[in-house]
Amino acid sequence: MTGDKITLDHGAGGGLSHELITGVVATTLGAVYVGQMEDSATVPVTTGRIAVTTDSFVVDPVFFGNGDIGKVAVAGTVNDLAVSGARPMYLTLAMIIEEGFPIADLVRILTSVRDTARAAGVSIVAGDTKVVHRGQADGIYLNTTGVGVFEPGTPDLNSRSLKPGDRVIVTGHLGDHSVHLLSLREGLGFEKRVLSDCAPLNHVVADVLAACGNGVHCVRDVTRGGLGTVLNELASASTVDLCVDAEALPVRHETKMAAEMLGVDVIYLANEGVLCVVADEASVSTAVEVLRGHPETAHTAVVGTVSAGGGHVRMRDANGRTSPVDLLYGAQLPRLC
Amino acid sequence: MTGDKITLDHGAGGGLSHELITGVVATTLGAVYVGQMEDSATVPVTTGRIAVTTDSFVVDPVFFGNGDIGKVAVAGTVNDLAVSGARPMYLTLAMIIEEGFPIADLVRILTSVRDTARAAGVSIVAGDTKVVHRGQADGIYLNTTGVGVFEPGTPDLNSRSLKPGDRVIVTGHLGDHSVHLLSLREGLGFEKRVLSDCAPLNHVVADVLAACGNGVHCVRDVTRGGLGTVLNELASASTVDLCVDAEALPVRHETKMAAEMLGVDVIYLANEGVLCVVADEASVSTAVEVLRGHPETAHTAVVGTVSAGGGHVRMRDANGRTSPVDLLYGAQLPRLC
Repeated sequence: MTGDKITLDHGAGGGLSHELITGVVATTLGAVYVGQMEDSATVPVTTGRIAVTTDSFVVDPVFFGNGDIGKVAVAGTVNDLAVSGARPMYLTLAMIIEEGFPIADLVRILTSVRDTARAAGVSIVAGDTKVVHRGQADGIYLNTTGVGVFEPGTPDLNSRSLKPGDRVIVTGHLGDHSVHLLSLREGLGFEKRVLSDCAPLNHVVADVLAACGNGVHCVRDVTRGGLGTVLNELASASTVDLCVDAEALPVRHETKMAAEMLGVDVIYLANEGVLCVVADEASVSTAVEVLRGHPETAHTAVVGTVSAGGGHVRMRDANGRTSPVDLLYGAQLPRLC
Repeated sequence: MTGDKITLDHGAGGGLSHELITGVVATTLGAVYVGQMEDSATVPVTTGRIAVTTDSFVVDPVFFGNGDIGKVAVAGTVNDLAVSGARPMYLTLAMIIEEGFPIADLVRILTSVRDTARAAGVSIVAGDTKVVHRGQADGIYLNTTGVGVFEPGTPDLNSRSLKPGDRVIVTGHLGDHSVHLLSLREGLGFEKRVLSDCAPLNHVVADVLAACGNGVHCVRDVTRGGLGTVLNELASASTVDLCVDAEALPVRHETKMAAEMLGVDVIYLANEGVLCVVADEASVSTAVEVLRGHPETAHTAVVGTVSAGGGHVRMRDANGRTSPVDLLYGAQLPRLC
């Protein structure tokens, strides 16, 4: 019998591993899992150009108010594919589980994986389960690696494509994911009022690209390192300057309070369901309209402008004064994704 | 400065993460790394059918006599693709690193990743680095996920294809990887005489398939769970019986001694560079000849036969008596791969 807690034997590749994988993992994932239980999965691709991305997730806490590590993993990997312009198709799911982890919790996480994969329209094609001794992991770590395809005519989205005159769009409240998790972890008391924004955004990205075509120059998801890091990477890769308007940034009141309590800057807080979209002047209003039409990106705002320059990012405050937004050097907040 | 030990800041997505990735990871991987430092890598595929596989590696010890976790990861993933008949092309590399892990050790591991990828002819296309607190991992865990392509005319290799009359081939000494690592871990004293067999075998598989075509029905790599597990999976998936000849199994004298000391059965010991090949009668001698021509598979032996039946595996001893080889239920030996 599988029992109610993960044991080292569950990861040993024998009959008990087999029971866990067929009886718990495959059963819970249901139709979303199309693996063939061979060493590799064989799957079709419709075009000659694919996107590949990988991410490990060490989220603390594993369960939070409106999601868990399984949702974060699938949404994060789907979004990494989507922002490249690819259509996410296949995900792999590898788990490193600490001995003693409750199987009921595993089922809960796998249920989130299933639901999020279903919402995004992707399949889980291959998996792996390793079990480590107590004290050699913190509950469970996931790795999801994704494969997407580029349909013919997909615009070439990348960090090097920003042009002077482009506008910078942000699709939701900055820092919600960070504030929700930190609030749970540090007891700040905001976790009921600020939920995680974690969501797969591939359908949103597809709609924006369909509406604006080559008018969209770049899409990035705002995760670890926050908008501040994304903007610095874009400015540097495209050798342009960016200026964002502090007043225009969509930020919740509670997030500002939490950031103050923690002594961190909102611009570096992580999201798991917010995009930074850079579009040319002619496409901005269409992009904003499409984005505001989706519930996940209803709070979309135009926040900044691209100008000729050497890769600097600045923020303009309510009085018109600008100050630099530097690339954060170290961690502000580890283990949020 | 990056310093000489991994800190939480190295995993936070800011400037220090960037320094680690560009200054240490990308520099060490060299030409093998073709990632674009975007959220996804964009890569071409030449056919409409791809193979995908994922594996996390929690090897203990991380470094061993003739290899390390980096070599095991790349070889393991390459082999999982190769045994499906695919040509391995792209790997992702995700690392979960414990705070305090020496950067010199990381460089050593990445050097192995590079050398093994180069030997196999695959590229690393995307990566991810997470850092967890001390006591939340055991040094370093890797995940490698692989993508391969099926060239037109590739035989359909899978576990369900075994036919009565087929022969079972094993390409090297059983258990070398297990015995080497256990010897280091438990102080058995065999680690100098029995080295790990860890190696990428994609070129070997390609040569056998080129020589034998559809005469090869199935290829599996013998890893976690050992030959005993592979044989049970094949017998069950194909609904045939398998009988292996104990005397024919390639096993080192030291391995027999180590297995006896540990109270484990050699048939369940893990390899990282040994294949189980099932071929029809007409192709056996060609397959063996091709395999013996490669140094990694020089000790290839024909060890058993497939017959009509209900999925049972038996072993015949020197006296002609047979006994069942059951599917191992729990772990014998955790954390070898």
